[in-house]
Amino acid sequence: MKAAFIGLGSMGLPMAENLLKAGVDLTVWNRTKSRADGLIAQGARWADSPSQAAQGQQIVITMVSKDSVLEEVTLGEHGFASVLSNDAVHVSMSTVAAETSEKLRAAHQARGAHYLAAPVFGRPDAAAAKMLFILSAGPAAARELAAPYLAAMGQKTFELGDEPRLANVIKLCGNFMIMGLIESMGEALTLCEKNGMPRQLFIDILSQSIFPAPIVANYGKQIAEQGYEPARFKLELGLKDANLVLQTAAEAGMAMPLAQLMQARFQTAVANGRGEWDWTGAAYNISADAGIKP
Amino acid sequence: MKAAFIGLGSMGLPMAENLLKAGVDLTVWNRTKSRADGLIAQGARWADSPSQAAQGQQIVITMVSKDSVLEEVTLGEHGFASVLSNDAVHVSMSTVAAETSEKLRAAHQARGAHYLAAPVFGRPDAAAAKMLFILSAGPAAARELAAPYLAAMGQKTFELGDEPRLANVIKLCGNFMIMGLIESMGEALTLCEKNGMPRQLFIDILSQSIFPAPIVANYGKQIAEQGYEPARFKLELGLKDANLVLQTAAEAGMAMPLAQLMQARFQTAVANGRGEWDWTGAAYNISADAGIKP
Amino acid sequence: MKAAFIGLGSMGLPMAENLLKAGVDLTVWNRTKSRADGLIAQGARWADSPSQAAQGQQIVITMVSKDSVLEEVTLGEHGFASVLSNDAVHVSMSTVAAETSEKLRAAHQARGAHYLAAPVFGRPDAAAAKMLFILSAGPAAARELAAPYLAAMGQKTFELGDEPRLANVIKLCGNFMIMGLIESMGEALTLCEKNGMPRQLFIDILSQSIFPAPIVANYGKQIAEQGYEPARFKLELGLKDANLVLQTAAEAGMAMPLAQLMQARFQTAVANGRGEWDWTGAAYNISADAGIKP
Amino acid sequence: MKAAFIGLGSMGLPMAENLLKAGVDLTVWNRTKSRADGLIAQGARWADSPSQAAQGQQIVITMVSKDSVLEEVTLGEHGFASVLSNDAVHVSMSTVAAETSEKLRAAHQARGAHYLAAPVFGRPDAAAAKMLFILSAGPAAARELAAPYLAAMGQKTFELGDEPRLANVIKLCGNFMIMGLIESMGEALTLCEKNGMPRQLFIDILSQSIFPAPIVANYGKQIAEQGYEPARFKLELGLKDANLVLQTAAEAGMAMPLAQLMQARFQTAVANGRGEWDWTGAAYNISADAGIKP
Repeated sequence: MKAAFIGLGSMGLPMAENLLKAGVDLTVWNRTKSRADGLIAQGARWADSPSQAAQGQQIVITMVSKDSVLEEVTLGEHGFASVLSNDAVHVSMSTVAAETSEKLRAAHQARGAHYLAAPVFGRPDAAAAKMLFILSAGPAAARELAAPYLAAMGQKTFELGDEPRLANVIKLCGNFMIMGLIESMGEALTLCEKNGMPRQLFIDILSQSIFPAPIVANYGKQIAEQGYEPARFKLELGLKDANLVLQTAAEAGMAMPLAQLMQARFQTAVANGRGEWDWTGAAYNISADAGIKP
Repeated sequence: MKAAFIGLGSMGLPMAENLLKAGVDLTVWNRTKSRADGLIAQGARWADSPSQAAQGQQIVITMVSKDSVLEEVTLGEHGFASVLSNDAVHVSMSTVAAETSEKLRAAHQARGAHYLAAPVFGRPDAAAAKMLFILSAGPAAARELAAPYLAAMGQKTFELGDEPRLANVIKLCGNFMIMGLIESMGEALTLCEKNGMPRQLFIDILSQSIFPAPIVANYGKQIAEQGYEPARFKLELGLKDANLVLQTAAEAGMAMPLAQLMQARFQTAVANGRGEWDWTGAAYNISADAGIKP
Repeated sequence: MKAAFIGLGSMGLPMAENLLKAGVDLTVWNRTKSRADGLIAQGARWADSPSQAAQGQQIVITMVSKDSVLEEVTLGEHGFASVLSNDAVHVSMSTVAAETSEKLRAAHQARGAHYLAAPVFGRPDAAAAKMLFILSAGPAAARELAAPYLAAMGQKTFELGDEPRLANVIKLCGNFMIMGLIESMGEALTLCEKNGMPRQLFIDILSQSIFPAPIVANYGKQIAEQGYEPARFKLELGLKDANLVLQTAAEAGMAMPLAQLMQARFQTAVANGRGEWDWTGAAYNISADAGIKP
Repeated sequence: MKAAFIGLGSMGLPMAENLLKAGVDLTVWNRTKSRADGLIAQGARWADSPSQAAQGQQIVITMVSKDSVLEEVTLGEHGFASVLSNDAVHVSMSTVAAETSEKLRAAHQARGAHYLAAPVFGRPDAAAAKMLFILSAGPAAARELAAPYLAAMGQKTFELGDEPRLANVIKLCGNFMIMGLIESMGEALTLCEKNGMPRQLFIDILSQSIFPAPIVANYGKQIAEQGYEPARFKLELGLKDANLVLQTAAEAGMAMPLAQLMQARFQTAVANGRGEWDWTGAAYNISADAGIKP
């Protein structure tokens, strides 16, 4: 197995490491080279640009922070789209708008290459533990080619058919579900605290009764403790995702009032200097508005 | 074991039946007598009023639809409070306001009896299957006395200390978490459908990845299918609970915007004749507002 | 002309003074006697209780802070309802729930007296300047009897027919319109400031173009300057009114999302110690959430 | 006086007519030529493209439906930017994003021409009656040159300084104020109706007391009657404006919950086929949600 990996942020780095461990012959590129030092020590090759990294590859994996960066590394001056060989597959794992997927798919298609949308659920610790859930959507042949690589990075891959955009929509919807959970727990915990109850007690009961999911226990603990730093997923990225959700909803012609509430929460947090906090920090203002400071 | 059981609605009936099965000598009362026929056939005694049912009992269990009914059966003309023997325990399992608990506790205390708040998580099918989660808060002796009865009705009892009101607040917060889940799934599923995806697919992915809780699978299936009838928990009771949540928040001096959103959803549903639907039907309007009718 | 006047707060005092100026033989009562000193110096009589004040009167005017106080001075231990002579009229000018009006109407009717709901639009400066707008609803004979007294306190009286509750609903709706204006201007002014514009400029343009109403200029100036103290109408009373609006809506079976937003704004302000500010201070948080402190 | 006028929609047509009446030598262009017939009969010249219309002009006025159209007629293939003579002024009167103004200003500046943002308050009837309020922002010389033209189209011009974007922001804020008024009146009128009151009565009282502005009387009458057709300003343009407001807020880094509420109202209306209604029709759903159909 052989691949290029572009983007070594808090998610990309552990994902690339798992590919190396699985024996993949890996060429990497990142805006800041020093992030790659550990991987190089473990045998990864360094490339000086996305296009150089993709030279002669059948699989090019991207994991970058946002839509504009994804477009830049793919279609920009040093982007790799122009060097993709025939039938090569771009495995695009970032959380981006469905329309960004559409655009890249069209660009690759024009050159005979393929686009696979493969966004993931999970934060950096899950990436490190190979516990990611991966959504895979694109042409069947591309999905087949990518499958072993995805298997090396996650605990389960959901095959979602031929349309890349569907994976992006589902990924956004999943993140939106988590936003809803943050708001729900934030309001409930504040009401508990206002009534003289220890915040953690409510999370313990919840996670041992009607909501027995690790996400409730983990996110709940952070919000119960109001421990929003350091970030596991930055609040400013939460705002980006809320914006993407609402943009997708606007294109679909529908209202999403809970998504609007979360957008407002994230906007308020960023406007008050909390963009670097974990996105559970959206709950900070619920308590602050009630007169409670952690 | 011996007890009175007051209120044989869709929850009370299967709960009383489980007490009978556990060998409890049970006296029952309900507004409509015919609801008790099956229990009487299984050995329960019928009483003509709450006060008659409670005569000589150490344990009186109530499971009624709302605060005003609870006050009526307890403190009203034929209410049982006046006949409670010394150290008897009123096990109050309905979802009611914390201040209703306070009021009843004071009323019982004045006569030497005890009040135990013991609200439950679970719908009628969970009650029938003895799968309820029960929250128990009140004087230690009362909790001890009630414990075997609660064990006969649920899968797990959470002991929450001496203050009855805490159990009510936690119960309301739990129901509020479910409301948040209904809204989150309703918006997400509508966005999926608007993007040409089968609704159930999203629930399958969600419940097999980041939200592996039965409640997500079960409620999600209902909302995915827009199958809101018959009700497992009536929407008009959801409105009652949203009102109780907001009343508790107002007393605590805090804003709960997501609870407000859900109150508005339930009000809109009831105003349009959907009060008898299941409370997941709050999601109906999300799709209808987007131009989708099931 | 002769009347009793109960409640000498920031509204009641100037209103009573205008009655005196119009030559009314006035007996007054207030919780704190010292508030009446000026009126007594101008010829008003002091009474030691609401019931003493109402002794032998055909007209009893009340202007108190909230529903519970109105019920106390009317129906409480020293309330005046029991001493009202036949065909006497209770002119109730406070902002209260429609159902409070219903309750008092029934209480008076049982004794042969009449209830007139006569809430007002205007803050203390308008009361002092006899510029109040008055809504009058109740039996025709009662409205006729009260008319000259109302004329002595306001610039215009709207006759609204026989049902007292309608005046209360309209008064609440009017206050709700002002709440909507506060939020609208608060959001707009924050957007202007964020774009480098002087806040007052927007109010000047607005009040000289599409919104040429004094309320826009006056309230707008306060919000533009973020000058929320001293209060002309206390924010905690704004919360009371938002609660009354939502209670009325709940009884009517309808959702009012903008009223919910304002309730949340007021709750947040009170929870953070701003209950004594002017109710335009609801706009403080709009700017604070955007990272702007006045 | 001599000018080109581009865009003869429901607003542009009466505005152009007023210029003709004021003696302006007018060359016009519109996507659909037949809209210009009346103007040509009154002496206007027809041009086959925006660029042809602008040939040799010092003043080019645009009044088109949205940002993309404005960019097309200005910078597109047949756009007029490339033919503008030195020191010519583009008087841009549409409601567009501040950033669209920035973009066009830069484009003109590069060629030595000027950009003046001059959006208006008023619907077609106000345009016909020369009753528009006009906001004028741009270089002093450009404002001076444009002043007599603007005076021929409106009742008052507000001079807002050198930055075109400020006029756009103020225009959006003004439209946002109207949205807030629509929601406020819609909720209040529904509450009145639910309480058995004639809807118009509330508007009469409001416009004769605390809100004595024509906009309250006019918009209020439409909402009271639920007379949403034919449109005077299309609801789908209201959605466009709500989107622009929120986009501007997002760029400024702030939350605008009332603007979000209105965006959701408009999205819901458009999704249900009411995009061609007047934008007061946003209030339709408030009543429908309460179970009231007009």
